[in-house]
Amino acid sequence: MNIRQEIQLIAQRAKEASLVVATLPSEMKDKALSMMAKDLIDNKEILLAENRKDLEYAESKGLSKALLDRLTLHEEGIEGIAEGLRQIVVLPDPVGEVVKMWRRPNGLLVGKMRIPLGVIGVIYEARPNVTVDAAGLCLKAGNAVILRGGSEAINSNRALGSILQEALAKSSIPPATVQVVPFTDREAEEEMLKLEEFIDVIIPRGGEELIRFVVQHSLIPVIKHYKGVCHIFVDATADTEMAIDICYNAKVQRPGVCNAMETLLVHQEIAPRFLPPMAKRLQKAEVEIRGCSRTSEILPWIKETIEEDWYAEYLDLILAIKIVNDVGEAIWHIGKYGSSHTEAIVTSDYNNAQRFLREVDSSTVLVNASTRFSDGFQLGLGAEIGISTTKLHVFGPMGVEDLTTTKFIIYGNGQIRTS
Amino acid sequence: MNIRQEIQLIAQRAKEASLVVATLPSEMKDKALSMMAKDLIDNKEILLAENRKDLEYAESKGLSKALLDRLTLHEEGIEGIAEGLRQIVVLPDPVGEVVKMWRRPNGLLVGKMRIPLGVIGVIYEARPNVTVDAAGLCLKAGNAVILRGGSEAINSNRALGSILQEALAKSSIPPATVQVVPFTDREAEEEMLKLEEFIDVIIPRGGEELIRFVVQHSLIPVIKHYKGVCHIFVDATADTEMAIDICYNAKVQRPGVCNAMETLLVHQEIAPRFLPPMAKRLQKAEVEIRGCSRTSEILPWIKETIEEDWYAEYLDLILAIKIVNDVGEAIWHIGKYGSSHTEAIVTSDYNNAQRFLREVDSSTVLVNASTRFSDGFQLGLGAEIGISTTKLHVFGPMGVEDLTTTKFIIYGNGQIRTS
Repeated sequence: MNIRQEIQLIAQRAKEASLVVATLPSEMKDKALSMMAKDLIDNKEILLAENRKDLEYAESKGLSKALLDRLTLHEEGIEGIAEGLRQIVVLPDPVGEVVKMWRRPNGLLVGKMRIPLGVIGVIYEARPNVTVDAAGLCLKAGNAVILRGGSEAINSNRALGSILQEALAKSSIPPATVQVVPFTDREAEEEMLKLEEFIDVIIPRGGEELIRFVVQHSLIPVIKHYKGVCHIFVDATADTEMAIDICYNAKVQRPGVCNAMETLLVHQEIAPRFLPPMAKRLQKAEVEIRGCSRTSEILPWIKETIEEDWYAEYLDLILAIKIVNDVGEAIWHIGKYGSSHTEAIVTSDYNNAQRFLREVDSSTVLVNASTRFSDGFQLGLGAEIGISTTKLHVFGPMGVEDLTTTKFIIYGNGQIRTS
Repeated sequence: MNIRQEIQLIAQRAKEASLVVATLPSEMKDKALSMMAKDLIDNKEILLAENRKDLEYAESKGLSKALLDRLTLHEEGIEGIAEGLRQIVVLPDPVGEVVKMWRRPNGLLVGKMRIPLGVIGVIYEARPNVTVDAAGLCLKAGNAVILRGGSEAINSNRALGSILQEALAKSSIPPATVQVVPFTDREAEEEMLKLEEFIDVIIPRGGEELIRFVVQHSLIPVIKHYKGVCHIFVDATADTEMAIDICYNAKVQRPGVCNAMETLLVHQEIAPRFLPPMAKRLQKAEVEIRGCSRTSEILPWIKETIEEDWYAEYLDLILAIKIVNDVGEAIWHIGKYGSSHTEAIVTSDYNNAQRFLREVDSSTVLVNASTRFSDGFQLGLGAEIGISTTKLHVFGPMGVEDLTTTKFIIYGNGQIRTS
């Protein structure tokens, strides 16, 4: 059997498993999730040993320190992954919820019931924790999942996969509910993206290059997460201290993530009194500041921005600052240069707050809070399978509920159509 | 300027218009819709003349009568199209609705607000009424739309497009909110499907071939409507008379549409007393009956089905009948051969009704009612832009609300993240 045939078989098995897992009682799914958590901890030694193989190979290939970091499983890391599963256990089961129901004039009772998506393909890069997180969330929402991790993590992912499958088997759930693709060839990925009869949605998690590859090759709908070029607009009426705290938090607390601030927009009226203390605070954290020409009139020592800076997702301690005339210009700038991810306004003006919330076309829009809250766990979704920066199906942080869709259920008593 | 550049320009203009139309007050959109309805009627003569050009050309090319029918605009047809727009006026505006809102432990107030999808590309075949329906629904939900109709209807569509654009201009809405692609080359279509930076979603309406072409070439998410192989399962405890009425309605009332019944599944216990009167009624309507070997024991004069019959979307007065052992086998058959569109059970058994609703994995599942109710207007969505047979974003009949997505809006008072 060649790779294409093996992938087809994996997808076919997933489809069959999805029909079973779609209608399982919540209790069975939750028991399996708890079992998975326990088994991961019980098999820590095996996992660490398999992970060491991946690390040795990665080191020999000279991977960057950042990549090695993301690839590494520690003992506490495994505890954390297991704890993540336990947190999924306590979430409400979205499947079967009737989100709306109404009666038609002819007596038909029409409802929309949540059902699983079916088979979800997750394509991701190095991090082995995604293997378990994604498996847990997909199972909770009644889906089967096919996990295609990065080649660097293949030993770790295979080991995780077989522990998860054993826990499923012990819980009387088809092991094919969670499958790790056991080979690392590009061919496997390309074939997987064509199997629209078996796979309902593809969720890629990784860099822009990975996502573009997936979109280019997929016949299956893709939930995309491109980059996060997040903005904060400090309005004329902002509380200066609050604005400094929020901007500092959004830029410095974890600069390498997609919901960190990349561009700071400042109302011209507040700029002279806001920018000097803000810059001072940022400098202490060794943030490199770049700014427009008006900004450099106030902060003469900074580097001037070029056009590319406004599009940049630095993911680093670098910040671009632009002084704008008003909230309208701020919204315009975000529309032109932003990535539809997350933007915030700091203001005391009621009308500007409401206008910003309404008009900014991004997946998360905040008033007087840090962009770092754009995260499934922080927003109360319980856990996060990713963040969508395109609008179809879901826009913004995705929780367990977003791994479902709805079908119409209709109770009648003999109705037929006459026209 | 070549065709590719012209399409890009159309898409770019649509994107710009979408930013304006996204935040228009409902009143302005509704006024424009009413204006469109009025202008269509006022310009009836022009429309009929342009439609005649299309018809003459189509006739000279020897198009089928069915196609010519769908292409033809009559005076009453134009009245009907205008009435469709007036019905959209009275629907509630979905944009800005906050569908959920909750407070987090840190005081953040988190909501999900409906927003337009942005720019919608509709690709369809002959029927010129789709031009107006789609334009009206997209505008109501605050979207811009690019309409790419079939080449047979190009004169009708261009005329409709300019009437709609004039109505928009008179209503102070950017005319680029509704654009008809003015050329019929395949190249235009292929280019359109690549413009993911401008177009947010593609909705193809037409035959399976059209939809496969779109899926194959699109970098933009596609809402798909494949075929409708709809089933009715007549359970052992069904009220025979009700079952006959429902099955007759589902097969005969309008056999050429996607929610008509194609396969009838009959419980073995009710078959001997249900099938003879059912067959008699169907024969009066000249329905060709095909059946499994068990069916032909009861109806010896019928043609026996072959495997392909179970997959067939006849769209005609043909019906395949299969006798099954129980509700479990009926659900299994639907899962194997169905198209996830619409299925119904006729039963008096509470448990079987609930099980069928829960376990059948189709976009619309009915108890004791005709499959013909699987339609946006019939279900109370007000109007229908299409029916989705895949699960992402929406599953089943789509109304105006399904042309929106949600974004997170967050009210804070200085919150920052500490971990």
